[in-house]
Amino acid sequence: MSELAGNVLVGQSGGPTSVINASVAGVIAEALNHECIEEIYGTLNGVLGLLNEDFIDLAAESQQQIRALRHTPGAALGTCRYKLKKQQDFERVLEVFKAHNIRYFFYIGGNDSQDTADKISKLAQAQGYELRVIGVPKTIDNDLPVTDHCPGYGSVIKYLAATVREVACDSEAMGQGDLVSIIEVMGRSAGWIAAGAALAKRRDHPHDPPHLILLPEVPFNQEKVVADVSRVLKREKFCSIVVAEGLVDADGNYLAASTATDAFGHAQLGGAGDALAAIIEGSLPGVKVRVAKPGLIQRAAAHAASKTDSDEAFLAGQAAVRAAIRGETDKMVTFVRGQTEHYTCETGLAPLSDIANGVKLLPPEWINEDGVSMNFQFARYAQPLIQGESIVPHENGLPAFAQLQKTRVDKVLPPYEIV
Amino acid sequence: MSELAGNVLVGQSGGPTSVINASVAGVIAEALNHECIEEIYGTLNGVLGLLNEDFIDLAAESQQQIRALRHTPGAALGTCRYKLKKQQDFERVLEVFKAHNIRYFFYIGGNDSQDTADKISKLAQAQGYELRVIGVPKTIDNDLPVTDHCPGYGSVIKYLAATVREVACDSEAMGQGDLVSIIEVMGRSAGWIAAGAALAKRRDHPHDPPHLILLPEVPFNQEKVVADVSRVLKREKFCSIVVAEGLVDADGNYLAASTATDAFGHAQLGGAGDALAAIIEGSLPGVKVRVAKPGLIQRAAAHAASKTDSDEAFLAGQAAVRAAIRGETDKMVTFVRGQTEHYTCETGLAPLSDIANGVKLLPPEWINEDGVSMNFQFARYAQPLIQGESIVPHENGLPAFAQLQKTRVDKVLPPYEIV
Repeated sequence: MSELAGNVLVGQSGGPTSVINASVAGVIAEALNHECIEEIYGTLNGVLGLLNEDFIDLAAESQQQIRALRHTPGAALGTCRYKLKKQQDFERVLEVFKAHNIRYFFYIGGNDSQDTADKISKLAQAQGYELRVIGVPKTIDNDLPVTDHCPGYGSVIKYLAATVREVACDSEAMGQGDLVSIIEVMGRSAGWIAAGAALAKRRDHPHDPPHLILLPEVPFNQEKVVADVSRVLKREKFCSIVVAEGLVDADGNYLAASTATDAFGHAQLGGAGDALAAIIEGSLPGVKVRVAKPGLIQRAAAHAASKTDSDEAFLAGQAAVRAAIRGETDKMVTFVRGQTEHYTCETGLAPLSDIANGVKLLPPEWINEDGVSMNFQFARYAQPLIQGESIVPHENGLPAFAQLQKTRVDKVLPPYEIV
Repeated sequence: MSELAGNVLVGQSGGPTSVINASVAGVIAEALNHECIEEIYGTLNGVLGLLNEDFIDLAAESQQQIRALRHTPGAALGTCRYKLKKQQDFERVLEVFKAHNIRYFFYIGGNDSQDTADKISKLAQAQGYELRVIGVPKTIDNDLPVTDHCPGYGSVIKYLAATVREVACDSEAMGQGDLVSIIEVMGRSAGWIAAGAALAKRRDHPHDPPHLILLPEVPFNQEKVVADVSRVLKREKFCSIVVAEGLVDADGNYLAASTATDAFGHAQLGGAGDALAAIIEGSLPGVKVRVAKPGLIQRAAAHAASKTDSDEAFLAGQAAVRAAIRGETDKMVTFVRGQTEHYTCETGLAPLSDIANGVKLLPPEWINEDGVSMNFQFARYAQPLIQGESIVPHENGLPAFAQLQKTRVDKVLPPYEIV
C-alpha cells in the first residue's frame, strides 16, 4: 500500500466521557510521527463542524495542552447529538473534505457515530475519493459490539464503585436499622454501569455494599425489593442501593415515569431513585431514604479516572492512525483481551458496519440468581478496567484542565444551511 | 495543674464528613504520648454509646488502621442524631463515666454536640467529679461561631468546585445555547457550601462556571433567574448553576416544597434542583436541563479531600488532648487564622457555651451585588482551605478504608432504657 499524503481530521461525537480527550491526544501524538500527514485538524462539535467547515488547527496547540487532554473531561473539540440523515448532508461533508484535502478521518464515538463514519467512508469510495476512515470507540455505556470493552466505561464504574464505598461509610455510621441510601446511575437500556458498582464489594465479602443493584435487565418487582431492603436493614443496619435510571417494571414502563407531574406538566421530575425512595418510605414506616443522583458528574469525573481506561483511550487513538497509515479504512479500533490470567489488552479492527448495527448486552449469566448482585464472571471482566489512578495535575487546589486555543482553519466553501 | 490520671473517651456525633475520622486519629495519636492516660476508649454511635455503655478499646486497634482513619470517610465510631434531653440521661452518662474512670472526654461534632458536651461537663463539675471535656469542631456546614472555619468544610467545597469544573467541561462540549446543568448541593439554612463552588472560577475569569450560584441567603426570584439563565446561554452556549438545597422564595418557602406530591403524599420528591429545572424548562422552550444531586456523595468524597482540611482535622484532635492534659475543660478547639498574607492556622480554645448557642452566617458582604456570585473576600477566605490533595491508598483500583476491629469494653453497669 502506497503512502497517502494529505490532512487528518479528528472529531468527537455523542456524550462526553472522562477519557474521550485522551483518544484525541493519541491521534495527534501518532499523526505527528508520519511525514505523509500534513495538517492535523479537529472538527468542532462533530458533524456540525463537518457541515459548517468549523475546523481548528490542532498542530498549532502547545504540547502541554495536548498532554493535558489526557486527563481533561468533556470533549475538547465539542460534540453534538445531531445526526447526518439526508444524502445532501453527506455530499456536503465530502465536498468539505475535498476542499481541505482531508485524507484521514478519525471519528471518536458510539454506535451512531460509527454509522455516520461508515456512510461517509462508503460515499467517498463510491465517488473515487481516496479517504481513510477509522472509528475510535467511546461510550460509558459499554454497549459497542465486537470490542471487549469501550474507553470511558472503566472510569465511570471506578468513580461509582469508589463513591458507593465512600457513601457506605457515611450510611453505616448513621444507620440504626432505618437508613437506606440510593445512588441513581446512568444506563437507560442496559445495566453495564449499575453492574460496575458491584466492584465496591471486596472479594469474598458478598454482604459488602452495594447491597442491592437494580438493573434494567431485571424487571422491578416492588414486593421483592421492599422485602430485600427490609432484610438488609435488619442484617446491616443500613441498606445501600444502586439503581439504573432505566429501571423498568414487568410491563416495560420506566419506574421514573410513575412520579407525579409538576405544575408545568413535566413528567420527568425526579427519576428512578426518587420513585424508589417514595416506594420504600411508603412501605417501610420509620425508614429514611437518601437519594444521590450524580448525573453528569459520573461521566466527567476525570479526577477519579482509571489509568487503565485513560491509557487505553490514548492507545485507541494511536492505533487508529497507525491502521489508516497502513491502508486500512472503514474500520473501528477494537480492544482484544488476552487469554492470559493477567489482564492484557491489544487493539484490533472491525468493520464499521458491524459496530453500527450491533449492541452488546450485559450477559444475563453474569447476574446472580437473586437478581440484585453480580457474580465472579462480571468481576473478572470488569476489575481490570478500573486499575490504576490517573494523575490529574492540580492548580490552586483544583484539577487543571486543557484549554485549547482553537486556531480556526480558514473556510474555503460557501456556507451550508443545516435544515 | 496536677496531672489527672484516668481514661480517655472519644465520640463522634451528627452527620459525617470526609475528615471527621482524622480528628479521632489525632486524639488517639496524641493520647498515646501521655502517661497519665491509661485507656483510650471510643463510644459507639455518640450519645447512644454513652447511655448504653457501648465502648470500644481504641488502643487495641493496629497502627495501620488508626493511620487509615486519616483518609476514611464516614464516622468510624458511628454517630447518631439522638439528643440527650432529660436530666436522667445526663445522670446516666456521668454514672457510666465514673464506672469506667473516664477523666477525658473528647466530643467531635457541631453545635448540638458541643451543647451536649457542655451539659455533661457542667454536671460533672456540680457533682465534684473531675472530668475534662474538650469539643472538636466538625461540620461541612461551616456554621460554628468563634472558629475561623470547621474541619469538613474545605473538603466538601474542594470536591464540589472540582466537580463543577468537570461537569462544565462536559456541558461546554454539548451546549449549543440550549443546555443548562444544575448541581444541587447541601446547605439547608446557609449558603457556605454553595458559595464554595465559586472556587471553580479561575482568578480574573468571572465568566467561568459556575455561572449562577443560588444561595439560601438570596430569596429566589423566578423572573430574575430565568433572565440570568437566558443571558448566560447566549454568552456561553451553556449555563452552569449551583443551587443550595435550602433555596427559599421571598416568603421563606423552600423551592423544593413547590414540587408535586407523589402517590404516597410525600412532598419531598425531587429537591430544589428538580424544581428549578422544571421552572427553567417551562420558561425557556427548547432548553434542556440536566440535574445532578450529589447528596451524601459530597460529604463522603474522601478520595478528593483537601489535605489542608484533613491535616487540620487531625491537628484539632491532637490539640484537644493537649489542652485537656494542660487542665483545660469545657472548651472547644477553634481555628485561628494568622494575619499574614500566606495562610497560617493555629488552634485556640473557646467556651463550649459560646459555640452551642451561636451560628456563623455567610457574610452578606461577600456576595456580589448580582446575588449569584461571590466576591474576592470569599475567595480569599475559602481558597486556602482546599489546598493540597489528600492521598488515599488504593487497593485493586479502589480506595481502601479503615476497618476497625472494635474490641468491646466490658459493660459494668445494669442496662439503661432509652425512652
